[in-house]
Amino acid sequence: MALCAFAFPGQLSQRSLTSQTPVFQHCFFGTDLQHPQSSHTTFNQASKKVGGVRATLSERPEYFSQRPPTPLLDTINYPIHMKNLSVKELKQLADELRSDVIFNVSKTGGHLGSSLGVVELTVALHYVFNTPQDKILWDVGHQSYPHKILTGRRDRMHTIRQTNGLAGFTKRSESEHDCFGTGHSSTTISAGLGMAVGRDLKGGTNDVVAIIGDGAMTAGQAYEAMNNAGYLDSDMIVILNDNKQVSLPTANLDGPIPPVGALSSALSRLQSNRPLRELREVAKEVTKQIGGPMHELAAKVDEYARGMISGSGSTLFEELGLYYIGPVDGHSIDDLVAILKEVKSTKTTGPVLIHVITEKGRGYPYAEKAADKYHGVGKFDPATGKQFKSSAPTQSYTTYFAEALIAEAEADKKIIGIHAAMGGGTGMNLFLRRFPTRCFDVGIAEQHAVTFAAGLACEGLKPFCAIYSSFLQRGYDQVVHDVDLQKLPVRFAMDRAGLVGADGPTHSGSFDVTYMACLPNMVVMAPSDEAELFHMVATAAAIDDRPSCFRYPRGNGIGVPLPPGNKGIPLEIGKGRIMIEGQRVALLGYGTAVQSCMAAADLVKGRGLNITVADARFCKPLDHALIRALAKSHEVLITVEEGSIGGFGSHVAHFMALDGLLDGNLKWRPLVLPDRYIDHGAPDDQLAEAGLTPSHIAATVFNVIGQTREALEVMS
Amino acid sequence: MALCAFAFPGQLSQRSLTSQTPVFQHCFFGTDLQHPQSSHTTFNQASKKVGGVRATLSERPEYFSQRPPTPLLDTINYPIHMKNLSVKELKQLADELRSDVIFNVSKTGGHLGSSLGVVELTVALHYVFNTPQDKILWDVGHQSYPHKILTGRRDRMHTIRQTNGLAGFTKRSESEHDCFGTGHSSTTISAGLGMAVGRDLKGGTNDVVAIIGDGAMTAGQAYEAMNNAGYLDSDMIVILNDNKQVSLPTANLDGPIPPVGALSSALSRLQSNRPLRELREVAKEVTKQIGGPMHELAAKVDEYARGMISGSGSTLFEELGLYYIGPVDGHSIDDLVAILKEVKSTKTTGPVLIHVITEKGRGYPYAEKAADKYHGVGKFDPATGKQFKSSAPTQSYTTYFAEALIAEAEADKKIIGIHAAMGGGTGMNLFLRRFPTRCFDVGIAEQHAVTFAAGLACEGLKPFCAIYSSFLQRGYDQVVHDVDLQKLPVRFAMDRAGLVGADGPTHSGSFDVTYMACLPNMVVMAPSDEAELFHMVATAAAIDDRPSCFRYPRGNGIGVPLPPGNKGIPLEIGKGRIMIEGQRVALLGYGTAVQSCMAAADLVKGRGLNITVADARFCKPLDHALIRALAKSHEVLITVEEGSIGGFGSHVAHFMALDGLLDGNLKWRPLVLPDRYIDHGAPDDQLAEAGLTPSHIAATVFNVIGQTREALEVMS
Repeated sequence: MALCAFAFPGQLSQRSLTSQTPVFQHCFFGTDLQHPQSSHTTFNQASKKVGGVRATLSERPEYFSQRPPTPLLDTINYPIHMKNLSVKELKQLADELRSDVIFNVSKTGGHLGSSLGVVELTVALHYVFNTPQDKILWDVGHQSYPHKILTGRRDRMHTIRQTNGLAGFTKRSESEHDCFGTGHSSTTISAGLGMAVGRDLKGGTNDVVAIIGDGAMTAGQAYEAMNNAGYLDSDMIVILNDNKQVSLPTANLDGPIPPVGALSSALSRLQSNRPLRELREVAKEVTKQIGGPMHELAAKVDEYARGMISGSGSTLFEELGLYYIGPVDGHSIDDLVAILKEVKSTKTTGPVLIHVITEKGRGYPYAEKAADKYHGVGKFDPATGKQFKSSAPTQSYTTYFAEALIAEAEADKKIIGIHAAMGGGTGMNLFLRRFPTRCFDVGIAEQHAVTFAAGLACEGLKPFCAIYSSFLQRGYDQVVHDVDLQKLPVRFAMDRAGLVGADGPTHSGSFDVTYMACLPNMVVMAPSDEAELFHMVATAAAIDDRPSCFRYPRGNGIGVPLPPGNKGIPLEIGKGRIMIEGQRVALLGYGTAVQSCMAAADLVKGRGLNITVADARFCKPLDHALIRALAKSHEVLITVEEGSIGGFGSHVAHFMALDGLLDGNLKWRPLVLPDRYIDHGAPDDQLAEAGLTPSHIAATVFNVIGQTREALEVMS
Repeated sequence: MALCAFAFPGQLSQRSLTSQTPVFQHCFFGTDLQHPQSSHTTFNQASKKVGGVRATLSERPEYFSQRPPTPLLDTINYPIHMKNLSVKELKQLADELRSDVIFNVSKTGGHLGSSLGVVELTVALHYVFNTPQDKILWDVGHQSYPHKILTGRRDRMHTIRQTNGLAGFTKRSESEHDCFGTGHSSTTISAGLGMAVGRDLKGGTNDVVAIIGDGAMTAGQAYEAMNNAGYLDSDMIVILNDNKQVSLPTANLDGPIPPVGALSSALSRLQSNRPLRELREVAKEVTKQIGGPMHELAAKVDEYARGMISGSGSTLFEELGLYYIGPVDGHSIDDLVAILKEVKSTKTTGPVLIHVITEKGRGYPYAEKAADKYHGVGKFDPATGKQFKSSAPTQSYTTYFAEALIAEAEADKKIIGIHAAMGGGTGMNLFLRRFPTRCFDVGIAEQHAVTFAAGLACEGLKPFCAIYSSFLQRGYDQVVHDVDLQKLPVRFAMDRAGLVGADGPTHSGSFDVTYMACLPNMVVMAPSDEAELFHMVATAAAIDDRPSCFRYPRGNGIGVPLPPGNKGIPLEIGKGRIMIEGQRVALLGYGTAVQSCMAAADLVKGRGLNITVADARFCKPLDHALIRALAKSHEVLITVEEGSIGGFGSHVAHFMALDGLLDGNLKWRPLVLPDRYIDHGAPDDQLAEAGLTPSHIAATVFNVIGQTREALEVMS
């Protein structure tokens, strides 16, 4: 479920090359736009010459200082405008589309590598199929930039992932061509099967195509869906976009991530046993159909496509009941169009899986050469591939977490790191480098990650499961049933808690406090700053009789001093702390919301009111003494958290009610995330939209004590 | 995840034969206990003679009116006592164990069929491996009765699934021989891999064996775990206990459930391509080692086992990196012991999968003949196989749900039923019978079930996903990301909400209100009785612009009149109702807790206090007007629910706080499930343990208003 994560600038990550980008001073990428029809050939020749970065193309770096000319793409607003193009023109369109994606993303940042890998596939799909009647589902959705450009959104690509701009994933409300919203991985075979069955029940005839990566294929949901698709036998097309995300070389820990699943071997065998087919015959046929000069028998196409499933024995996909075709060169428009047309025209065959081999970052030498294939990049200079570094004085919480865990693991060899294909995003690659035998990347498999950790805990080891808040939703039953119910000391490091900026609501860590704190045995905590994060990692390491979890946000620390040697000091379980002592109003913050409370206290202090701020540290167990003290000595108690209803504030209220603290005149006000999803955007915009900025908190303070004028002032 | 569910008497279910048990008047099952060494042969002969119910064994039905003699089993308290037995004696032990299981379960009810299927496997495992040093993990755990008998718990088998008795699944706190607690399916390869890796990190040499059924193999987690096991290559043994749960015949809808996944075909191919091997050579070798008369070369064993993996091409398991051995006759002690000893002695081979074919219900003709193989039974007469029917005047909520959904579907052809291998447990088999083309069993695959439903909703259909509350945890991310975020009108029918009796905490539906009501777009409701359930099914069918869910308990309705024609009337969204108007104290119940509130009101009325009772009906959206009215006209407001903290009560408190209703002297008291797991037991015992009986509620009423004497009285 994890490949969708965007590693932001400033964060040490395998998938964010901010600090690792090789600088190619004299190289550049560009299509020969004055001879667009020859550009594909030029690429291949260049590639052959130097076997990597295409030095021979470095003569005209000025192309990328401005938007590249795209004469053919300029005529395509919607897929309908492509239908009369020749294959030659489709190739030109693909080249222009690639240039456009690179140029756009260089100005906005975003998921570049995956989008570049599917340029030809996107063109072929929209040429052969007819959205929105036909359904095209992009798994994860981060590879959908070319799709967005071809479906009426080109003029808004400069807004992608920005406040009020296009989403970075597919989104139903954005376009009728986005038939299913994605963000988390491995959902599209399930959704596509639902659409196919729905079509059958309604007597429809449209096609359904789910495009899913090899990484996403490691998730259990993909298997469940294929098993069901193979049984139901509805017509649908699954395109396995195999860009070798689970089969990269292992040698260099500073380089690509090793493969993590046996599936990678199975796919490799397929690739080696059945070399990419050039499909000359098929190409000829297609060329004939769409106006080219060569004419061959249509029967040949059929014969060829069918011949593909005989070969080296059954595949995993065939075992699950999918008709396997492949592997197919995912950068050959000819082959793709031929295969897709053939599959489209053959109805009532049940589910078909087309194994397409693509190259992540394809066509942009800096991306191709980079370990992460420019999976998620910040803004960069297209002529040099150089990403603009952020100049943040602090590191990300993710990195601090990794440093804290390394420090703990230096002192305790029982500590084990586990993540689900998010070595870069969770900082676990840093842990891997220090402790190669104690770090486990289980693939996009949160369910397994959690129970695997439970098994390790049974053996007396100290597993830390680092999983994004929103991704842990996928392992929720395992957290409940395998960990919490058995009171096994598994530690959950929940990164990306709260609002997450550009990735938007699919990745928002809104619900973790609610869904974790209801579990009887779980210790639930959240650091208010990066030093506290170090202490909580130490605390979790020390809690050995029950499970624990701690949440921390996307983004950087606030610059407080770190503990010596990065070694945190275990906190007393269930004890918070007073940050500022004041009167009348107490703000009780949870997690980094404490910082907003501190800023709010400053704002109200500027208007003559000295209020109390406390850092709860723990949602479970609660600090009863602290809450009692706050409740008894203030008129107003405001709980503040960047999480949904049912979480920290609810736990505080529950205790206060049972303790009688709410029976009198105490005014309790819970500030939580609003009861709606917050769209992607700049973090500050999101926080304002959520009503959780220091100004909002300060205004709430004034409103509750009746100073409405000050409330208005503080918001202005 | 679903095979573990126990269908209780009185409920119409494919897996509970209460109402479908064929009555064999003149048949019986028994071992020839006077000649124990010949009993296995006798079985087979009998079986051959009549090809089904073993009529020739019907001569001495009196065996089962009392505990069968078990002279050999009587000497075995722990596995260590088995180690010097001959294979012949192991066979006798298995026969006695089978008799003992049948007799025990006839007195207690429980999961009979699965346990009978693994009698020989259990004996062989405990003969070859040495728990607790070696780890044996029973997936789901409902087949662990023979294991429990052989590991020191025989004298407590009469307490199984009862209050303070043995658990119906494996449980770590119950025995050191239960190395991992189960209940939900498909977890043991993950946990076992964690144990194997933990062993390797610690330099241990013990074995890890995970036994998992073919049904459980359809869950994504099993695939994720195998993929990771194949990659990590730690030594572990997976035993696929293939009792054809996913490959039963399809012809008769009143009979067995059709296969639901393509995996069943793959397994069938394996079975047909590689016939059960009798392993005569291997058996001889083993016999030699454990004292038998025959001596052969040990090399033969090795050769045989290794030879097994060459054969009919690769399997799904080999694709995932597991060394495949099989299929093996799971009822042949000789074969099992030989294979297990061989695999145990061959270290550093990485993960091995042994495909064992067993027969659910094996050795008890009534179970073998029954469609559900006596999966979960109530008490029965062992001589006749006849289950004692409960005489409840009402049906289960499950059945009412099915009837309500059928009534809706009669009127609206867009309504579709979906479940995850729980056709009996959810009542969906009734729906299937009426609408065979509109009911989808997706296998043990909750993740896929939810997103599949989302896909159907995209096509304008009206999917109802019937999933137990605790099982829906496994599809939580899909509920959030694929359904709620996209505001797709999928309806979740959450059966087994609240405490569930004998199945215990693994199946307790404790958290659903908390984890569903925090989702912004979800309508969350709960019926207070069976008539309300009909109305809520109608309400969910009518809600077509967003997702909705409703929870209902295990157990029977209370006997209120049902709507005419089973057709509910859609409720006004977000409107509750007053049940009793009273003074001072208001009980605001959610779901069937309203019935406890009504009973509590009766109790306090008997002591002179007339209180108000309201039925919230909706947790989301809340009935603000109702809550305001209750809060303003009472001294005390008590929210009551059979769910965890963070749910209904928290939502009420949140609203009241923001509305200022808590600022004054109103006393709010939340009654929820306690912050610990409630062990299995009789429903009344569980409710008392949870503090949610009418007496507890009444006592709370008196306590809050200071009448402590009455509070004590009402509890006495």
